[in-house]
Amino acid sequence: MFLTGTMKINNTGHLEIGGIDVLHLVKDYGSPLWVIDEQGFRDNCRSFRDAFLNYGDTMVLYASKSLCCLSICRIIDEEGLGLDVVSGGELYTALQAGFPADRIYFHGNNKSREELNMALEAGVGRIVVDNFYELELLNNLSREKGLITDILLRITPGVEAHTHEYIKTGQIDSKFGFTLTDGQAWEAVKRALQCPGLFLQGLHCHIGSQIFEPESFQHTIELMIEFMKKIKAETGYELAELDLGGGFGIYYAPGDLPPTTEKWAEVIINHVKAQAEKAGLKMPRVIIEPGRALISPAGVTLYTIGSSKEVTGIRKYIAVDGGMNDNPRPALYNARHSAIIANKAQLAADETVSVAGKCCESGDMLIWDVALPQAEAGDILAVFATGAYTYSMSSNYNRQPRPAMVLVNQGNADVIIERETYKDLIRNDRIPGRLKK
Amino acid sequence: MFLTGTMKINNTGHLEIGGIDVLHLVKDYGSPLWVIDEQGFRDNCRSFRDAFLNYGDTMVLYASKSLCCLSICRIIDEEGLGLDVVSGGELYTALQAGFPADRIYFHGNNKSREELNMALEAGVGRIVVDNFYELELLNNLSREKGLITDILLRITPGVEAHTHEYIKTGQIDSKFGFTLTDGQAWEAVKRALQCPGLFLQGLHCHIGSQIFEPESFQHTIELMIEFMKKIKAETGYELAELDLGGGFGIYYAPGDLPPTTEKWAEVIINHVKAQAEKAGLKMPRVIIEPGRALISPAGVTLYTIGSSKEVTGIRKYIAVDGGMNDNPRPALYNARHSAIIANKAQLAADETVSVAGKCCESGDMLIWDVALPQAEAGDILAVFATGAYTYSMSSNYNRQPRPAMVLVNQGNADVIIERETYKDLIRNDRIPGRLKK
Repeated sequence: MFLTGTMKINNTGHLEIGGIDVLHLVKDYGSPLWVIDEQGFRDNCRSFRDAFLNYGDTMVLYASKSLCCLSICRIIDEEGLGLDVVSGGELYTALQAGFPADRIYFHGNNKSREELNMALEAGVGRIVVDNFYELELLNNLSREKGLITDILLRITPGVEAHTHEYIKTGQIDSKFGFTLTDGQAWEAVKRALQCPGLFLQGLHCHIGSQIFEPESFQHTIELMIEFMKKIKAETGYELAELDLGGGFGIYYAPGDLPPTTEKWAEVIINHVKAQAEKAGLKMPRVIIEPGRALISPAGVTLYTIGSSKEVTGIRKYIAVDGGMNDNPRPALYNARHSAIIANKAQLAADETVSVAGKCCESGDMLIWDVALPQAEAGDILAVFATGAYTYSMSSNYNRQPRPAMVLVNQGNADVIIERETYKDLIRNDRIPGRLKK
Repeated sequence: MFLTGTMKINNTGHLEIGGIDVLHLVKDYGSPLWVIDEQGFRDNCRSFRDAFLNYGDTMVLYASKSLCCLSICRIIDEEGLGLDVVSGGELYTALQAGFPADRIYFHGNNKSREELNMALEAGVGRIVVDNFYELELLNNLSREKGLITDILLRITPGVEAHTHEYIKTGQIDSKFGFTLTDGQAWEAVKRALQCPGLFLQGLHCHIGSQIFEPESFQHTIELMIEFMKKIKAETGYELAELDLGGGFGIYYAPGDLPPTTEKWAEVIINHVKAQAEKAGLKMPRVIIEPGRALISPAGVTLYTIGSSKEVTGIRKYIAVDGGMNDNPRPALYNARHSAIIANKAQLAADETVSVAGKCCESGDMLIWDVALPQAEAGDILAVFATGAYTYSMSSNYNRQPRPAMVLVNQGNADVIIERETYKDLIRNDRIPGRLKK
């Protein structure tokens, strides 16, 4: 269901999050508004962390690309998780939040020299090396600095996980990582072991997004352990870490059936254990990288409904005061979301409408065909599971200022990202003298 | 071809724009970099303006959603074009640039009360009313202010233009405008004529994007003029303006064959003239709204090539230091772009590669299968026709700062949008006291 964490319908029939009626949030902080349920987010973090810790030495990294800002980094730190960053900007944010560098893993298919230097200077825990160019560059930079840098190698196992099946092609044709099947991964391991500036801690892979079947990881685990066995057999070197990436599915809309964190942990860890034993390897430290699964269910976007339009016999549109600029997922991925009218949460959802954004673009549709009570201008639409890939992918398309984000908890609300103003939009604009009026 | 305006390959074999070797631009202003060829942009503006003015009283509005910043508004003003804005933010930018409000047309499917008030206070030329909710709201706001506001009504004619055919369904199911076929457009006209706060100047419609056949407009023109005839017959009222929107196709990649502006003007104006005569109407003032057609060919994005990866037997990837954050069009629309290696422009393009962005997402691919000379790290990739819908749709996805934009002309380069810094990324972040370290 879409009501997660502290979300509930209160006795005035309104949506309440963190002990606050969301209508008060819109009144105090404006619309559209991103709301994060702090307790819900923390519970998701603990649930993943504990489910995996239960099986011994594991590590859960929050994938900051899903939502990265100072306060979120602070919460992740407080919850004892690690952090996966994919750019200098994410690393900068984490460091500014005081996040311990040794719990940061640095990913990316095209890290720049500047970004790698920044990571080395900060002393990040691991750099996940994606390609031969980076392997050489990082080795050189490490040597220049007199460092031995802990790395993982990103491997492309050639498996793509879908909800109910494996698709064993496709994923090979990826911009990421060293291909396992054509010998590049093996070549990368050999070279990494020869790099005096690098220390190969383990391997990383990532098989997809919105995965609902824990068994989807099994084939990849088999391939990765088999590869680790080959590495031990041919070099004598036993890798310490196996990072299996993210992709843990969440509930967006009916049909999405995510397993429990306990189930994820059980299937994944038991399979690694069994395969490692069979291969005669020590149990590696298993690392996972949920992002969406931690933050998305804890996020709700509040919009104010404005105009509406009935196309006779075809469809009723209602339009909100945001759209693809604050949530590009529907336009980018045909993503689905659940929604309610927050001030009419007790009324029957007896009308099927489609929710349009306000961007001047036909493609700016937030939800097709959702059942809602009769909507009127001024109603507040709550769209669920918007914690991930909304703020992080947001734009100023149509020159729209980005919404504020508030963190709610036990009756308190704190702005963690300020709303942009019109002034912000032109802050970086310059007019050359010859164009001045 | 992708070399337009002042773009050429200079005698060192490098790409040159506005009289400047683009390698100097990257050296001086960093990478990635958006470059706008001022002369090329102005020439495109004049070409559309003059081609239509040649046929009498017409107006060309620049669609600012394609690229809106202070300097671009200044140039549009200097070239004597009007401006189509779709939000308070675009209107704000135009007004800050000193753009004359009476040449501004305000569009949008869900304008807020605040935005409408802002437009009324600024005295914009026309408000393009999209729906009944807005019609009533705008009438009330105008009356409160003692104004009579000039409006157009946005009509959904039920025609969608594709390159070589009409598709007469589909477009009816649109979030925009008053549907012609079910009588809503007629109802809107009747109501508008009864609104004491509104003066109905004319009609607006928009049939699609990237249209290459001027004849695509003909069927829409027939429907609109027929509707204007009905309005005159039944109310005695003759509309003064017919705004046919935008959608003028440009060259992105082989196969795109845009007509000349003269051809657009000839086909469109002659057809309006013929239909108006046939209907016994005065020739209305024809308005068009090119955005992409003016700015996109004048824009080039410069990237620095970093890592590369060969998937044996399948594909070679080269990665650049930008991606879907500075150009989401390939990810959103499967859009195509042409590219060259700016510092190897004289070499044979003898290798087919795919250009990956640096975002941590499989979907972040800028160009699939483009022929280039052998690429090396440090080479500068120039991607063409990126003036429109790049900066305007850009995000900080993966916490990447947005590039700078420089305007080049006759050997001069001026920054018109400053590059974002890491500091900018956290500028609006706040940490509540209880989360501070």
